Parts: sequence; C-alpha cells; structure tokens
Amino acid sequence: MTDTFDYHVLGIGNAIVDVLSQTDDDFLVAEGLAKGSMNLINAARAEALYAAMGPAIEASGGSAGNTIAAVGNLGGRGAFFGKVCDDTLGQFYRHDMRAQNITFDTVPLKKGESPTARSMILITPDGERTMNTNLSACVELGPDDIDENIVAGSAISYFEGYLWDPPLAKDAFRKAADIGHAHNRKVSITLSDSFCVDRWRDEFMTLIKNGTVDILLANDAEIKALYQTADLDTALKAIQQDCALTAVTHGVEGCFVIDKDGVLAVPTTPVTNLIDTTGAGDMFAAGFLYGHAKGLSNEVSANLGNLAAGEVLGHIGPRPQRSLQQLAEQKGLL
Amino acid sequence: MTDTFDYHVLGIGNAIVDVLSQTDDDFLVAEGLAKGSMNLINAARAEALYAAMGPAIEASGGSAGNTIAAVGNLGGRGAFFGKVCDDTLGQFYRHDMRAQNITFDTVPLKKGESPTARSMILITPDGERTMNTNLSACVELGPDDIDENIVAGSAISYFEGYLWDPPLAKDAFRKAADIGHAHNRKVSITLSDSFCVDRWRDEFMTLIKNGTVDILLANDAEIKALYQTADLDTALKAIQQDCALTAVTHGVEGCFVIDKDGVLAVPTTPVTNLIDTTGAGDMFAAGFLYGHAKGLSNEVSANLGNLAAGEVLGHIGPRPQRSLQQLAEQKGLL
Repeated sequence: MTDTFDYHVLGIGNAIVDVLSQTDDDFLVAEGLAKGSMNLINAARAEALYAAMGPAIEASGGSAGNTIAAVGNLGGRGAFFGKVCDDTLGQFYRHDMRAQNITFDTVPLKKGESPTARSMILITPDGERTMNTNLSACVELGPDDIDENIVAGSAISYFEGYLWDPPLAKDAFRKAADIGHAHNRKVSITLSDSFCVDRWRDEFMTLIKNGTVDILLANDAEIKALYQTADLDTALKAIQQDCALTAVTHGVEGCFVIDKDGVLAVPTTPVTNLIDTTGAGDMFAAGFLYGHAKGLSNEVSANLGNLAAGEVLGHIGPRPQRSLQQLAEQKGLL
Repeated sequence: MTDTFDYHVLGIGNAIVDVLSQTDDDFLVAEGLAKGSMNLINAARAEALYAAMGPAIEASGGSAGNTIAAVGNLGGRGAFFGKVCDDTLGQFYRHDMRAQNITFDTVPLKKGESPTARSMILITPDGERTMNTNLSACVELGPDDIDENIVAGSAISYFEGYLWDPPLAKDAFRKAADIGHAHNRKVSITLSDSFCVDRWRDEFMTLIKNGTVDILLANDAEIKALYQTADLDTALKAIQQDCALTAVTHGVEGCFVIDKDGVLAVPTTPVTNLIDTTGAGDMFAAGFLYGHAKGLSNEVSANLGNLAAGEVLGHIGPRPQRSLQQLAEQKGLL
C-alpha cells in the first residue's frame, strides 16, 4: 500500500467515556455480571450500578476511539466518526482525540439532548474488565455523520462490531464501506466481543463472506463464537477461507495472522505487571492496522499490535500513557 | 487519644477534579510554568491551556479531599466539607467520596452556577506534577458549610493551606477550629505548597504560634519557606519551638516527626516505579493523621504515611488504586 492517502486509519465507533473502578469478583457476582462481558444498560441501571460501585477514574474510551487515538500516538494520521453530546464529557472526549492529532469533527448533540455515553468498567484483581455501557448519545450516529471525503482519503476504514447495537450505525457502516471500496480503500471490522458476535453472527458472517470486510480483527473467543466452535484451529481454518486478512489475538501468547498463505503465529512477551486489560484489543488493532496501512509486513504489523497492547495492560485505562511511537522505534518496528 | 469520636479525621478543602496529562519539560517552559507549582488560573487561561495540552484522564482530587478519601481507604471513619456544583464532575466527586464511606454532605451549587473546580495537572517524565487550578465552585465554601456536629465529633479537623486562597474559606476554618477546640479536638493544617506559604506566611505563622494549629503537615520545601531559610535543620528546630506536633516529608528519604521530645527521622523505601507524585503528600497526611487519631505512635503513624504515599507514586492519579488497609495490615502497621 503506498502512501497516497490522507489518513492511515479512519475509525468509526461508539464514543464513550470510561468510568473505571477496581473491584473484586464478589461484586460481579452480586451484580449478576459475567466477567469479561460488555453489557448494555439503561439510565436507571447505570445510576444504580454507579451508586453501588467503588471510587473511579474517568478516561476517554470506546473501542474504535481507543484504536484511533493509539494510531495518532504511534505517529499515524487518523480520523474518527463518533457521536458525543456537547457536554463536559463530550468536551473531554473531543479534546483527547484532537490532542492525539486525530481529525474528529462529527457534529455533537446539543446539551440537553442525550448525554455523552459512559461505560462503567469494573476491573477485577486478575486484570479482566467487565463493561456496563449506556449508549445514550451514540444511538444517534447515522449515515449523515459519514464524511465522504474522509472515507475516500483513508487507507483503511475501521468499524467496531459494537456499532451493530445502535440502530442507525449499521447504515452508516454500509455507506462508508461502499465509499471506501469505490476508492479502492480497505474496510476492516473487529468482532468486539463474543456476546456481540452472538447477537449479530449472521450479519457479520454475511459481510465477511461477501467481501465487504477486507481485514478482520478478533480475539480467540470471538473467532470461535463466530464459527460456533470450541476449537481455535477449526475457526482459524474457516476464517482463512472466508476473509482475505485476519488477525486474531490470543491472550498472553500473542496473535495469529491469517491470510491466503496460511496462519502466522506472532508471539508476544507477557507483561509482568498486568493491571487492567481494558483497551488491549483496541491497541492491538491500532498497531496492526497502522502497520498494514504503512505497507509493513504482517509480522511487523502484528508486533506493533502486540507492543501497543502490552503498554496499556500495565495501568488502569484504555489508552497509552507512554509514546507508542517511541517504544516502537526503540524496538526497531518503526 | 481514645476512640470516643464519630470520625477519625474531618477534611476541609477545595473539592477539585484533576485533569491529569503526561507531558515534557519543554511544554512547561513554553507555557511559562514553574515545575512543581500550583498555579491559580481563570476560565480563559484554563481553556487555552486545555487546548494546548495532551490527552488526559480525570480523577477526583483536591488535597484534603485526597487525604480524607485515603483515610476511608485505610479503614478509618472520615468526613469532608468541600464545595462542588451539582454537575457531572460534582456528581463524580461526591460518588468517589461516598464510595470510600466518607460522609460528604456539603450542599453543592446548583447547575448553572460556578461549575465544579478542575485542576489541569501536567506530569513530567521525572514524576513531578505541575498544577493549574481554576477554583470556580470552591470559592463559595464558607462558614455556613461548617457542620458543627461533625467538627465536634471528629478527633482531628484537617485543613489544606490552599483554603487561604478563596476568600470565605478562612472564615470557615476559624469557625471550625473554634468548635473543634471547644470539644477538645485537634486542629491540623498542611502548608500545601511553598508558593502558598509565600502568599500566606504571616497568617500561617500566627495560627501556629498562637496554638490554633495542633498538628502541622508540610514538606521540606514548605517548612523552609515558612521560616525563609535554605537550611532544613534550622526550620525543623524552629517549628519544634512553635508547634506541638509536626510531620515533614522529605522526598524519597521519608519524613521527620517533630515534637517536644525532638526530631524523629522515619525513613521510607523509595519506590522503583515513580510515575506521578500527585497526591503523595496528601496520602502521607492520611496515614499520619489516621494513625494519630487511632492513638498509634508517631513512628507507626509516619510509617503509615510513608506507605500510603508510596502507593500513589506508581500510577497516574492522586488516590490509592489498591487497598491501603490491606497493605498496612500486611506490613503489620494496622
């Protein structure tokens, strides 16, 4: 891929502010929460859960949003479409994107309309995160928010699977995918979450099989959920038939990159200070997609992904606290 | 001190949400900021600085607020007086206090009045923090916010020196100090910041010398600023004459506790992963005051302070991310 584009990666996703709190397994059980899941909740449930949970910190999040912020942090050119409200949290969100040099001009809702979305993220001592998201303003993202020029100028348009939850966003996806392909750009999605795969399996499968998706991102649980198999190898062989390029993260072991040539395992160095897995998959996507957009090999791109994921595991919050670009340069990856 | 009180420590301070961002020394120079200082800024300056600074995370802060939250985290009973607005950040602040079992019932401003205060905290690679605070709602804290029953029921009432900056808060301090002493309770202040000492030296000196202050908290720079000397020993000898009990933190070396018996050095183990000093002094105060309220020795109280300070140095943000009570129990301090 040559560098004749305005943006390495355009991300489209739910713009969410994370409210992150450390807790214990007992609390998850008491609240009836499956560890590691993303739960969609309404305002009343959000209020009740917030009242019950411990002290928190707030950080801009959202899956594709995290990825695009990290593309900027890696030194790439990124853009983002996502719906916030022009309230305090929406202003934080916009700031945090623009401070990473990300183009983010989606028109926000007005104050008094739905507020900026929040996700209450409960982090257990094993580092796993369990998310409770009230989509509020995100529900309003639709086809009108797709800026054609930005899609046409982006090497890769990247969509989170969570976008299938709000009703209008999948129309936005279809519009953007068509524009991208009309300009010989690539379209990428992440499966986001195995529960999300259960909700939208048929639609995801269709998009993959009909060639709408050029690059698929998933973790091992999600790719197994897609093919409803307990065997990872089976799932990897199946996706090789169905998608041109797939990267599957595999916990502390690293990832697999699957294309027509086969399955490439790219190991990682497990972190010694696992605190919070929030955003790790999003960081992997950032490194992998940025590398791909720059024309780097699958192996180097996967190593960039592993590196970025490793950075966020060592602290609370979904986005890098150090310069990924510097870390990648030190490792000879950029 | 026997356990015949409702609260170990009552904190009174500016209720501030921190907006924390990692940056480099060049940015401080470009913005004309003295490293390590707390700068009071207005709304226009806040907007300009926020636009210039990098991505951030948000966390409840405020010096005395941090201390009281940590008293709760240590397993102590705490109360807090501080003025927020009933806006999003004010709701976060209230939640984070109550989630640590802190009594916090100060009536907030209404939405549309001054918003909840923010401090933009710039963290340099050496871990030092430089603060830029717009006091907004905090300016409204006054004598009417002093709940007499809570002061009367608190073993120690603790005030941050920063309270001398907003105009009404020192009246609140005087009222609370009088109530506390009338009930044989102790009054404690922290000098907060050497620039704050420069602004309010005469008033602080009077309060210390006339016995209004029973327990003084300071760091080495602040105690030297108080006596306008470059020599720490000189300052420690001087405060021994002027105040019944003083704890002076001394960076990575630990602290000194000064009372009529002399100067006790209580060393600490330097942390190996210094990320952010924000809140370290506040944590020390929490451990020291909680230990004192429980009737523990000066040495054990100082060790509790050192332990609490060490916890927050290893991550971004001013409040503990682990259970201080558990850590202290593991060390045999509680």
